[in-house]
Amino acid sequence: MSRTEISTLGEFGLIEHLTKDIKINNPSTLKGVGDDCAVVEASGKQMVVTTDLLLEGVHFDLTYVPLKHLGYKSAIVNISDVYAMNAKPTQMVVSLGVSKRFCVEDLEQFYDGLKLACLTHGVDLVGGDTTSSLTGLTISITCMGMVEPGKAVYRSGAKDTDLVCVSGDLGAAYMGLQLLEREKTVFQSQQGKEGKGIADFNPDFAGKEYLLERQLKPEARGDIIEKLNDAGVCPTSMIDVSDGLSSELLHICKQSGVGCVVYEERIPIDYQTSMQAEQFNINPTTCALNGGEDYELLFTVSLSDYEKVRDLEGIHIIGRIQKEAYGCVLATGDGSEYPLTAQGWNHLS
Amino acid sequence: MSRTEISTLGEFGLIEHLTKDIKINNPSTLKGVGDDCAVVEASGKQMVVTTDLLLEGVHFDLTYVPLKHLGYKSAIVNISDVYAMNAKPTQMVVSLGVSKRFCVEDLEQFYDGLKLACLTHGVDLVGGDTTSSLTGLTISITCMGMVEPGKAVYRSGAKDTDLVCVSGDLGAAYMGLQLLEREKTVFQSQQGKEGKGIADFNPDFAGKEYLLERQLKPEARGDIIEKLNDAGVCPTSMIDVSDGLSSELLHICKQSGVGCVVYEERIPIDYQTSMQAEQFNINPTTCALNGGEDYELLFTVSLSDYEKVRDLEGIHIIGRIQKEAYGCVLATGDGSEYPLTAQGWNHLS
Repeated sequence: MSRTEISTLGEFGLIEHLTKDIKINNPSTLKGVGDDCAVVEASGKQMVVTTDLLLEGVHFDLTYVPLKHLGYKSAIVNISDVYAMNAKPTQMVVSLGVSKRFCVEDLEQFYDGLKLACLTHGVDLVGGDTTSSLTGLTISITCMGMVEPGKAVYRSGAKDTDLVCVSGDLGAAYMGLQLLEREKTVFQSQQGKEGKGIADFNPDFAGKEYLLERQLKPEARGDIIEKLNDAGVCPTSMIDVSDGLSSELLHICKQSGVGCVVYEERIPIDYQTSMQAEQFNINPTTCALNGGEDYELLFTVSLSDYEKVRDLEGIHIIGRIQKEAYGCVLATGDGSEYPLTAQGWNHLS
Repeated sequence: MSRTEISTLGEFGLIEHLTKDIKINNPSTLKGVGDDCAVVEASGKQMVVTTDLLLEGVHFDLTYVPLKHLGYKSAIVNISDVYAMNAKPTQMVVSLGVSKRFCVEDLEQFYDGLKLACLTHGVDLVGGDTTSSLTGLTISITCMGMVEPGKAVYRSGAKDTDLVCVSGDLGAAYMGLQLLEREKTVFQSQQGKEGKGIADFNPDFAGKEYLLERQLKPEARGDIIEKLNDAGVCPTSMIDVSDGLSSELLHICKQSGVGCVVYEERIPIDYQTSMQAEQFNINPTTCALNGGEDYELLFTVSLSDYEKVRDLEGIHIIGRIQKEAYGCVLATGDGSEYPLTAQGWNHLS
C-alpha cells in the first residue's frame, strides 16, 4: 500500500481530499462541508444533538482495530445515541487530531468506514476539523438528528409497572474485547522469539466470529426504532447500552425516580458469549450487566403495550419498573435479589 | 487552592458537578445536559453547526494560558464561526479529554470561562462527553446556531465590484502570542539559575495589554452582525478571521469564483501591534495578513451598500472584489501589487 504524507496535501487539501466524494442525501442538509458552518433545514422538527470523544490508547487500540472499522464504530456510537432519543440521525460533523504516524491512506480508510456507517443510516457528513496532534489519533464526532415535536423519548419517562425491554443480546462486545486483548498479549510475548513477526501470527478465532464482529463492527438499532413505530409502540423511556445494562438501567431509574427488577434468566446472551465467558471463567450475566459497548436499545414500555411488544423479533422483555423504594435489583432463578450497581455486580465478580 | 482528584467524583459525578449550575436561556433548548442527546426546537428556522478540536501542545500552551481563558477562547472560536454565517449562536456541546495532571478545580476554571462566553453570547451549554486522556488536555466543541431561512451568508456569494470589509483590527493576537512565547523562552532559560522560580518571574507587559488580551481573551463579533442588520446591510459573503486575512480572503475568492484587491494602507492595525511588530522586526502588514486568531469578521457587501457601511463604527472597507482573472492581490502605497498567498506574503517575509 502506498503512503502519502499528509504534509503533501496540507490542511485544506486533506479535508478536500477526504470529503470530495461525499454526497448529501437529506433534503434538510442545505450546506455541507466547506463553510464556517453547515446549514440544516429543521422547520417543523425538533433537533437532537450528541457528541463523543474517542482517544487512542483510551478508547481504542490500533494494534487490533483496523482504521476502517474504527471509522465505522466511531460513527455508530453517535448514531446509536440519536436512535436512543427515538430520533432519525441526519447530519454529522467529524474532527480528527492526527499525528505524523498517520498518512493520507490511513485517513482514507477511516473515512471509508465513517462514510459506510453514514450511508447505512442515511446520515450526511457535513463538516469538521482536521488538525495535527502530537500523540496518536483523536476523534470527536457530533451527530444531529430529527424527531417530530413531542416524540423525543427521554431517560426520565419510566413509570411504575412499565415493562423493561432490550434489543438483541448483551455481553458479546465485551467478550470480543477480552479475546482481542488476550491475543495481543500472546502476540507481544512471542515477538522477537525465534524470529517470529506479525506475519506468523494467526490467532484462531473460529467459532468466535460473532464476538469479534460485535466488538469491531457494532450496529446501531435504527431497525428497532422503526419496528416499534410500525407496531404503534412509543417507549416511555430509552437509552442505548454503551456502558453495560446495569449502568444504563440505573440511569433510567435515577432520572425517572423509579426502581426496577430484572430477571437474570431473561437477559439475552448469545451462545458464543456464554461459551467464551465460561472459558474465561466469568459469569455470562456479569458480561451482560457490566460489559458495555453493545449499542443495543434499552427501553421501557407501558404495561398496556405488552401484547404489542411480546412477539416483536429481536426485542426481549427482561423485567419491570417498580417503585423507587424497592430499589434496582437483579432477580435470580433461586428467588434471590441482588442490587444492581454501576461498578459491577459484586457477588458475581 | 485545593486539589480534588477527578477519580473521587467519577465520570458521571464529574459531569454532574461541572454542569449542575448551567441555566438554559434559549426557549429553543428543550433538553440540555443529561440524556443521550440534547433536544432543540428549530421550527421555522435553519440551523447552523460548527466544530473545533483543540489539542494541548498544538493549539494552546498551558504554561501561559490560564484555564479560564482557555475555556473562554475555546467557546469564542466556535461562536465566531456561527456569527460568520450571519446566524445567532444558541447551543453548544463540549467534550473534554483530561489526563491525571488535571484536578476538578482545573476543570471548574475551564468551565467558568466556557460558561462566561456562553452567557455573554446567549448560548446554552447542552451536553458533551468527559473522558480520561493519556496525554494532556483535549477540547472538542460543537456550536449550533439559528438563522432565518434564506439569511445564511456563505463564503461563496462575493460578486465583482463588491466591497471587502473587515471588523476591528488585525494582527494583535499574533503579536500577543509572539510576546508570550518570548517570555516563556526567557523564563525557561532562567529556571534553576540562582534559585529562581516562577514567583520571581514578572515579565513587564506594560503598554502591551491589548496584544495579550487579543491573544488570551478574543471576542466574537456578534455586535457587528447586529450592527449590519440594524443598518439594513446583508453581506454577500462572510468568514471569520482565524487563519489570517490572506488565507480567509483566498477562501472567499476561491469559493465565489472571483479575485480581489486589498489596499495595504486600509488594513486596520492597532498602534500596539505596529510598535511590537517593529520591535520584533516584522512588517505589521505581514502580521495582519498571516497572523490569525483575530476572530474578526471579513465580509463583502454590494457596492450599492457603500453609503450604509461607510460610517459604521468598527467596520473598515479595505478593498474590492474583481474578476477572477485579475487574481487576489495586495496593493501597496507605491502602486505595486503582490499576489496574496495563504502561506505568507513572500516579499515581506
